[in-house]
Amino acid sequence: MKKITVIGGGTGTYNLIMGLKQYDVHLSAIVTASDSGGSSGQLRDEFGVLPPGDLRRCLVALSENRADIWRQIFEYRFDGVHEKNNMGNLIITALTKITGDFPTAIEVVSELLEVKGQAVPATLDNVHLCAELENGQIIYGETNIDIPKHNPELKIKRVFLEPKAFAYKKAIAAIMNADLVVIGPGDLYTSIIPNLLVEGIVPALKVTNAKVVYVCNVMTKYGETNNFKASDFVKEIQRYSNKAINHVILNTRQPSVELSQKYANENSFFVEPDIDGDVKHVTKTDLISNTVLFRHDNKKLAKIIMQI
Amino acid sequence: MKKITVIGGGTGTYNLIMGLKQYDVHLSAIVTASDSGGSSGQLRDEFGVLPPGDLRRCLVALSENRADIWRQIFEYRFDGVHEKNNMGNLIITALTKITGDFPTAIEVVSELLEVKGQAVPATLDNVHLCAELENGQIIYGETNIDIPKHNPELKIKRVFLEPKAFAYKKAIAAIMNADLVVIGPGDLYTSIIPNLLVEGIVPALKVTNAKVVYVCNVMTKYGETNNFKASDFVKEIQRYSNKAINHVILNTRQPSVELSQKYANENSFFVEPDIDGDVKHVTKTDLISNTVLFRHDNKKLAKIIMQI
Repeated sequence: MKKITVIGGGTGTYNLIMGLKQYDVHLSAIVTASDSGGSSGQLRDEFGVLPPGDLRRCLVALSENRADIWRQIFEYRFDGVHEKNNMGNLIITALTKITGDFPTAIEVVSELLEVKGQAVPATLDNVHLCAELENGQIIYGETNIDIPKHNPELKIKRVFLEPKAFAYKKAIAAIMNADLVVIGPGDLYTSIIPNLLVEGIVPALKVTNAKVVYVCNVMTKYGETNNFKASDFVKEIQRYSNKAINHVILNTRQPSVELSQKYANENSFFVEPDIDGDVKHVTKTDLISNTVLFRHDNKKLAKIIMQI
Repeated sequence: MKKITVIGGGTGTYNLIMGLKQYDVHLSAIVTASDSGGSSGQLRDEFGVLPPGDLRRCLVALSENRADIWRQIFEYRFDGVHEKNNMGNLIITALTKITGDFPTAIEVVSELLEVKGQAVPATLDNVHLCAELENGQIIYGETNIDIPKHNPELKIKRVFLEPKAFAYKKAIAAIMNADLVVIGPGDLYTSIIPNLLVEGIVPALKVTNAKVVYVCNVMTKYGETNNFKASDFVKEIQRYSNKAINHVILNTRQPSVELSQKYANENSFFVEPDIDGDVKHVTKTDLISNTVLFRHDNKKLAKIIMQI
């Protein structure tokens, strides 16, 4: 059975897993552990646990259909005046306290959700993501970069973790044992690169026998990747991964005029697939889903990945 | 298999179930649904669900030992600045919202916890417990009676539900189909009598073929049952149950001097077993557990109940 390891966090990774799980593959997901916003951020601040949100979503994506009621419980979000947390995040937090550590909590949750494959954090260290802007300003905390409180016209010069983080051994093993590693899609600086910043991840990507694929985003994100073309995304990924990528997957289909306008209202624009040969292999094709959102169609994307 | 239905709520009922589950019996628990304090009260106010706390404890007591991790999750209580809820209460609340109603949520939880038997609320109606004091003052809400904000020297003249509540059909069925109904032990006005106030419960107690047993408390509770002897407890139960009780179980063992002193600091005193024949049958014996708390030994109590 083909072993595929995806690296990311957020909706892009969730969607990718939903596509790949249709195939007879063994899936591992490595997710960023530097989230600091929303329910994850609150629980992290209050109970000193690792942010559970990104991991939770991957575990839900990897769960078997039979565990349907569990998926619903895990994705339930309270929307009250005092109680605003996500149920799955609360369960992971409670289990971390009950069992005494995060990996055991994840194991228990994996059993409850009848997870096929595994999802692991890139690191077990308690770290925060920081960004240095082109004017030298330092932004501290993932949520402050993700929902920019700074001038979103300023470019991100570099991102780094504070303090240094070391890779979780299961994350390293998932890279080393894979046949294929898929990085992205997802928010470049807040979901994807944070994984590459963890000490030990990049060396593993360099020495693994797996093919290492990068799936480029289809739309830019305001305050993070303004005016980025595919070549800019790939340049940044190659910079942070020490050129570990040997295959890039790009979307060629443009959004409709109406959809373009809708995204333009949020300063989000189509990512031009402007590379042909900067990396060893480039796959360019229509990867878009026919929904009201302009995003990867997980079936199309999974099919392309399975052909690599 | 003998069918036993316990009526109450709170620690007394939890403890009773822990004792009875050691026998080969079919257990049903009917619990009060008028709790308005703590985590239950907050979730009730915020999400309009029935108070989950008492039911949760009974479900946990009825769960099979195999479901150990679940019991731990359900009993886990967050103790943070913002997040102060009990995990089981949160899960029941989320499931009520997901499935659309409380009974279905309870069914799902019962499966998760591998509950043997059943636990049901006395009513599905959203009601509040009220008390009229001897000076005519009306106290609104269970939590305000339980942790008295009024002068605790004043006697409770009567308790009532606001508005009227009608019995849940499964509660009626549990009384009608039982061989034995056990009322108590537990806080008289806040855990036990609220069940009897629900329309339909008392008529069922009067017509069922089951023997109806009352287990009297072993210590008084300040602000609720000051100076009560066993005869006072029984008088109140007979008053609210329309004399449905035909068997009373009383403890005869007195607390040690040290323990008496400890309880006296909280204005709680030994309940004198002063009845011999006010009801058809009275069982008087040592029912106390050898712990630092002066409370029913669930093994001793269950053994006495099984002999009825």
